Amino acid sequence: MGRSSATPTEPAEPAANSAAQVLERCDVLATHTAANDGIERSYLTPEHARTNWTVGEWMAEAGLIPWQDAAGNQRGTYAGQTADAPVLLLGSHLDTVPGAGRYDGILGTLMAIAVVGRLAARGERLPFAIDVLGFADEEGTRFGRTLLGSCAVAGTWDESWWGLRDVQGVTLRDAFVAFGLDPARVGEAALDPRDVVGYLEAHIEQGPLLQDADKALGVVSGIMGARRFELTMVGEAGHAGGVPYGRRRDALLGAAEVAVAVEALARDAGAVGTVGRMQAYPGAQNVIPGRAEFSLDLRAETDALRDRVWLDIEEKALKSAAERRLDFLVDEKHQAKATVVGARLAAAVEAGIRTTGDDAPLTLLSKAGHDAMAIADLCDYAMLFIRCKDGISHHKDEDVRADDVALALDAFEAAVLEARKRHGLTGAH
Amino acid sequence: MGRSSATPTEPAEPAANSAAQVLERCDVLATHTAANDGIERSYLTPEHARTNWTVGEWMAEAGLIPWQDAAGNQRGTYAGQTADAPVLLLGSHLDTVPGAGRYDGILGTLMAIAVVGRLAARGERLPFAIDVLGFADEEGTRFGRTLLGSCAVAGTWDESWWGLRDVQGVTLRDAFVAFGLDPARVGEAALDPRDVVGYLEAHIEQGPLLQDADKALGVVSGIMGARRFELTMVGEAGHAGGVPYGRRRDALLGAAEVAVAVEALARDAGAVGTVGRMQAYPGAQNVIPGRAEFSLDLRAETDALRDRVWLDIEEKALKSAAERRLDFLVDEKHQAKATVVGARLAAAVEAGIRTTGDDAPLTLLSKAGHDAMAIADLCDYAMLFIRCKDGISHHKDEDVRADDVALALDAFEAAVLEARKRHGLTGAH
Repeated sequence: MGRSSATPTEPAEPAANSAAQVLERCDVLATHTAANDGIERSYLTPEHARTNWTVGEWMAEAGLIPWQDAAGNQRGTYAGQTADAPVLLLGSHLDTVPGAGRYDGILGTLMAIAVVGRLAARGERLPFAIDVLGFADEEGTRFGRTLLGSCAVAGTWDESWWGLRDVQGVTLRDAFVAFGLDPARVGEAALDPRDVVGYLEAHIEQGPLLQDADKALGVVSGIMGARRFELTMVGEAGHAGGVPYGRRRDALLGAAEVAVAVEALARDAGAVGTVGRMQAYPGAQNVIPGRAEFSLDLRAETDALRDRVWLDIEEKALKSAAERRLDFLVDEKHQAKATVVGARLAAAVEAGIRTTGDDAPLTLLSKAGHDAMAIADLCDYAMLFIRCKDGISHHKDEDVRADDVALALDAFEAAVLEARKRHGLTGAH
Repeated sequence: MGRSSATPTEPAEPAANSAAQVLERCDVLATHTAANDGIERSYLTPEHARTNWTVGEWMAEAGLIPWQDAAGNQRGTYAGQTADAPVLLLGSHLDTVPGAGRYDGILGTLMAIAVVGRLAARGERLPFAIDVLGFADEEGTRFGRTLLGSCAVAGTWDESWWGLRDVQGVTLRDAFVAFGLDPARVGEAALDPRDVVGYLEAHIEQGPLLQDADKALGVVSGIMGARRFELTMVGEAGHAGGVPYGRRRDALLGAAEVAVAVEALARDAGAVGTVGRMQAYPGAQNVIPGRAEFSLDLRAETDALRDRVWLDIEEKALKSAAERRLDFLVDEKHQAKATVVGARLAAAVEAGIRTTGDDAPLTLLSKAGHDAMAIADLCDYAMLFIRCKDGISHHKDEDVRADDVALALDAFEAAVLEARKRHGLTGAH
C-alpha cells in the first residue's frame, strides 16, 4: 500500500483484485492482533476496530460503499441494476481464535471484495445488489458464544446474550458500548429474508480432504451439527502429600479421564469430539485439584449421532465422577443444527469450479462451523472450499497456495454470475 | 486487640499465650490475603509485608525482639542466660498456597511465639537464646521453588534463583528490591551451624492419621523426599472440526493420560503423586490443544522409591507421546531428600506430648514437606504434629480443635524445656 513505484528494485504492486493482492492483504490483517505468537483478534477489541477500518478502505477501493453495521460487522454494498433489487450476500468472518493463522474467514472476506472489485472494474451491474460481509464474531473466542456477527445479520440475536462475560468479566453489553455501538440498535444489522437472494461463502477447507484428492477447490454439501459444553468436575482440594489416595476427591483426574474417553467414544461412533480447554483449581503444584473446568466441542454429520455420542460421554463422566466422589456439572454453551446447502446455490458454486477446468468437483461435508450456519436461518447458502496445507487451521502454520487462490477467485466470480442466471429460482426461503 | 473491657457485654480478651489467643490471631492473619475464596499470601507481596508487621507486634508483646531478616522472614529473638548462648530455633511459615486455610504453617509460628511468651511472662531464661522464625516462603507458590525462606536461614540460598519469575514475569531479584530487600545481603539471613542448638516446629498434620487414631498430637519421625516437575506435551494446534483423528497431535490428551497414570503408578508403588496444575494452549473451545502444561509432585518414604516411580511415570509419558506424535518435555523444579529427625530432639517432643497425658505418643512420617527439610542442612530438627479435621489442608476448610491447640502449646513448651535438659547432647551436627 502506498509504495512508490519509482524505485525499480521495489516489488510491483499486485494487480487489483488478484490472488496476489488478496494474499498480501491477509498479511496486512495479520498485523492487527492482540498477541504475537499467531493472530488473536476477538470481538469488540481495538484489533477488531482497526481491521474494520482497513477492510473498509479496501471495500471503497474496490467500488463498494463501506459501512459498519449495528453489530460491528464490516459491510460493503455494491448496488444492483435497480434501486429495489434484492441482495446477494457474499462474505466470511474477520475475527480469529487465539494463536490463529491468517486465512480462516479472512481469505473468504477478502475474496468477496476482490470478486465485486472485478465486477465494478468492468462496470457490471447485476439484477441483485451485493452485500459483502466481514463478520465480526464467528469464533466466539471472547464471549464463549459463536456466530454473534452472523446471528445479528440473520435476525436471530438473542437478548439473553447481553449478560455474557469475557474472561475479564466485561459483559457483551458493556463491550458493545465501549466499541461505540448501541445495544438497543443491534436489530438494525438484520436483513429481511424477503430482500435476500442467498449467501455464498468461500473458506479454506480446515481439513486435508482436498489435498488428499489433489484438488484446489471443492463444493460444500452441508455443515455438521455441533454442540459445545463447559464441563466442570468438583471435588475437594487438599495437600498433595498429606491426603491418602483413598480419601482424595481429585477433580482433575475425573476431567482427564473424560477427556481421554471423549476421543475414544467420538472416534468409534464416527463423530468428532475435542477438549480444547482444561484448567485445574486452585492450580498449585502441591495441592490436589478441588475443581477442574474443561470444554467439549462435539460434531457429527447428523444431529442424532452427535446427541447419542454426547449421552455416551455424559454417562462416562457421571461414572467417573461417582467413582471419585466428584460432582459433574454441565453447561451447554452452544448448539447448532446440522445444515444443508441450498441446491441451486450449490449448483452455482459447482458450475463456478467447473469453469476453472475441474470437470468433477469434489463435494465435501464441512466438519467446521461457519457463518453460513447462522445465515441459513435467513436464506439459502452455499460454500466454496479452498485447499489448505495439511489440513492445518486455527494455527499460525495455516497456509494456502497462491495458485489455488487464483482459481478460487475465478470460481467464486463465476459462481456469482451463475447465481445471476439462476436468479428467480434461488430466492429467499 | 485494643478492645475496651469497660463494656461488660464484650467477649473477654483471650488470655495471653493461650490457645484461644493463638486461634484468634490465626483469624486475624487470614485477613492478610490477596484473594477472598480461601487465603492467598505469597512471597514478597503486600500481604506478606502486612503479615510480618502484625506478627512482629505480637512478638514484641510476648517479650521477643522482632526483626525482619534479609530474606523477608519475620523473626523474634529471646535472649538466653548469657550473651554468647547458642540459639534454639522455633517456628514455621507464614505464606500460603492459593485458596489456603488459616493454620498450615501459621499455627506453628504463632504457637512458637506463645511458648516464648510463657517463658518471658515467668522471666525464665534458658541456657540458649530462642529465635522464633516466621518463614516467608515455604509453599513456593509465587516463584515455583519452595522453601526459599528456610533455605536463606540454612545458608543454602542458590544464586541461580534470582532469575526465577512469577506468572507476571517479575524476577525474584526484582521482587526482592520492590519489597525493600537487598539481594546482595541475603546471606545475612543465614545462621552459623556452630551457634545453633536445633530446630523445633509444630504443624498441623495435613493428613488423617491422628484423627483416625483418636489422638490430639503426634511426633514426626521424618519427612518424605519429594520431587516436583513442570511437564509439557507439545503437539500441534488445529481446528476441532476439520482435523481427522488420524492426523491429530492433541497435546492435552497426552497430558491427561499421564495424569491418570500418575495416580495408578504412584498408588501401586506405595508412593504419592499429584498433578496439581494443568492447562491446554491455545485454550479455545474449538481448537485442538497444541500444547499442554502440567505439574507433578511426587513423594515417597525413601528417595529410591520416589525415583523409581518417576522413571515409571516418565516411561508412560514417553510412550503416550510416541503414540500421539507429541514431544514430552521435563523441567525438574525442585528436589528434596527424605530427611529424618534428630533423635534427641524428637525424644524431647515425645516427652512433651507425654506431659499432656498421652502415654504412647503416635509416631508419624510426614508426607508433606516442611521448612524443617531445609533447616536439616543447618542443624537437627524435630516436629510436633497437631490433629486437623479430616486431614484437610491447603483448603479453606482446614480446621483444628481449640482443645488440641491447648494441649499442643503445653507439649511444645514442655519440649523446649526438655531440650534444655538435653542441651549439650543435641548440639549442631
